[in-house]
Amino acid sequence: MSFNTVTIIGFGLIGSSIARALKKHGAAEHIVCADMSDDVCATVRRLGIADVTTTDIAGSVKDADLVFVCVPMGAIEPVVASIAPNLKTGTIVSDVGSVKGLVEGVFKKHLPAGVHGIPGHPIAGTEHSGPEAGFAELFVGRWYIMTPPKNADRGAVDRLAALWKQFGSNIEEMEASHHDQTLAITSHLPHLIAYTIVDTATQLENDLQSEVIKFSASGFRDFTRIAASDPVMWRDVFLNNRDAVLDILARFNEDLIQMQKAIRTGDGQMLQDVFTRTRAVRRAIIDAKQA
Amino acid sequence: MSFNTVTIIGFGLIGSSIARALKKHGAAEHIVCADMSDDVCATVRRLGIADVTTTDIAGSVKDADLVFVCVPMGAIEPVVASIAPNLKTGTIVSDVGSVKGLVEGVFKKHLPAGVHGIPGHPIAGTEHSGPEAGFAELFVGRWYIMTPPKNADRGAVDRLAALWKQFGSNIEEMEASHHDQTLAITSHLPHLIAYTIVDTATQLENDLQSEVIKFSASGFRDFTRIAASDPVMWRDVFLNNRDAVLDILARFNEDLIQMQKAIRTGDGQMLQDVFTRTRAVRRAIIDAKQA
Repeated sequence: MSFNTVTIIGFGLIGSSIARALKKHGAAEHIVCADMSDDVCATVRRLGIADVTTTDIAGSVKDADLVFVCVPMGAIEPVVASIAPNLKTGTIVSDVGSVKGLVEGVFKKHLPAGVHGIPGHPIAGTEHSGPEAGFAELFVGRWYIMTPPKNADRGAVDRLAALWKQFGSNIEEMEASHHDQTLAITSHLPHLIAYTIVDTATQLENDLQSEVIKFSASGFRDFTRIAASDPVMWRDVFLNNRDAVLDILARFNEDLIQMQKAIRTGDGQMLQDVFTRTRAVRRAIIDAKQA
Repeated sequence: MSFNTVTIIGFGLIGSSIARALKKHGAAEHIVCADMSDDVCATVRRLGIADVTTTDIAGSVKDADLVFVCVPMGAIEPVVASIAPNLKTGTIVSDVGSVKGLVEGVFKKHLPAGVHGIPGHPIAGTEHSGPEAGFAELFVGRWYIMTPPKNADRGAVDRLAALWKQFGSNIEEMEASHHDQTLAITSHLPHLIAYTIVDTATQLENDLQSEVIKFSASGFRDFTRIAASDPVMWRDVFLNNRDAVLDILARFNEDLIQMQKAIRTGDGQMLQDVFTRTRAVRRAIIDAKQA
């Protein structure tokens, strides 16, 4: 047994997948589900994926030696502030959020001495939400990025890393600010672009809109999957990684304006050059076994 | 036997898939592969997917009662002009290009009276190119859009439609200009956006670029697949559907600027509203069995 009592706060896709992975690997003796929604707690009881359910977030961590905060970014600070007085010395507190600078600051501000705050981010997910969408294998073969603060306890970091290795993840450690810059490119900008193009389509006249649905397999469809991701979660990502997102968005806009100009002026060579070098990126992703 | 001799000019992904589908369904007695590349012809002979191969494009249509021009958009006019003098009366000439206004004009300008020019577009493809990438089932369950001119011979249109039904496609008829407007949204803009975002990533510093590859599963990866499509084909699409693409790109840019402003000013409600309504589009695509 790696951990005695694990409390998971927020039982959506990721929280419920962690619970299932813990059970599958026998990595926790006792799993506590804390969620402010009665409905979610009822679903979790029906699914049998936690030993206890409670809507008392603050009280849910009393016996925990590991806590995962799996709520949207905007709820992380109030949740951490509310559980802080009830945490035992030696407990590890982690999260699964997409912006790590924010979490590092929240942990530093609210967690008492002797509690190990270690931000983490599993690069895994689907476009589905809620406790029924989770599954134990969600993290297999996927990256788990940890951003422990400089003064972090190595023993605690290693215990947490060992758990995610058990879940099947590959572990990477980096600074929070570097994580946020990298994810702005690999995840936040792609989601923003996908949301935008799908929204552009929703504003078309009705008959054209139904044809967009009908012929979506020609490219558009690929964007709609990620534009179906959880709205509150993504709102909070953009509000909390503003600077990195605006920076990469500015670069994208420059490049898009150049493409627009090439199309307008009929600059076929420029278009062909860009379309040729982007192929190499796909090959690199295939070579890295991330395709 | 639907057709006696079918000549396919340009034996890439689509041309070679048509040849395979013709063989599979016994829909042609004789298949002629015409390609200006000796290498392609040699590959087609090795694969055994045509009865004859030739690099003499103009002469390849002498016995044909059906011709598919499957070359990049930019090559369609010279190809059609060169084959026109050798076409028999009653022959159907079609294509598979992504811009139909252009093809309608080329057919009207170059095809002799008594030859039936019927532009067509199978909404199917992969990110792979070349004769080895094709397969007979590529068109199964996918849309085939025909844009016959107003004065088209109904018998010829029906024969061509029947062939694509045999290939497993669903048939849709519309005007060329409407096709080009619809595809600008469903296909051309998504490809342009995907090419651009992948190109933005290629311009990052080296260490960040390798991390983008590594963590691409968080969203970026979905864009790289369509940004690996054939560069020459796509160059020609943008050069030949310029007005429709620039129009929808302008709408997308307006929407993206609003998103940028919402992030900059912290307008969470606006972001959440957009992210919520885009979910409905995904559901509509799933309901339309196009997911």
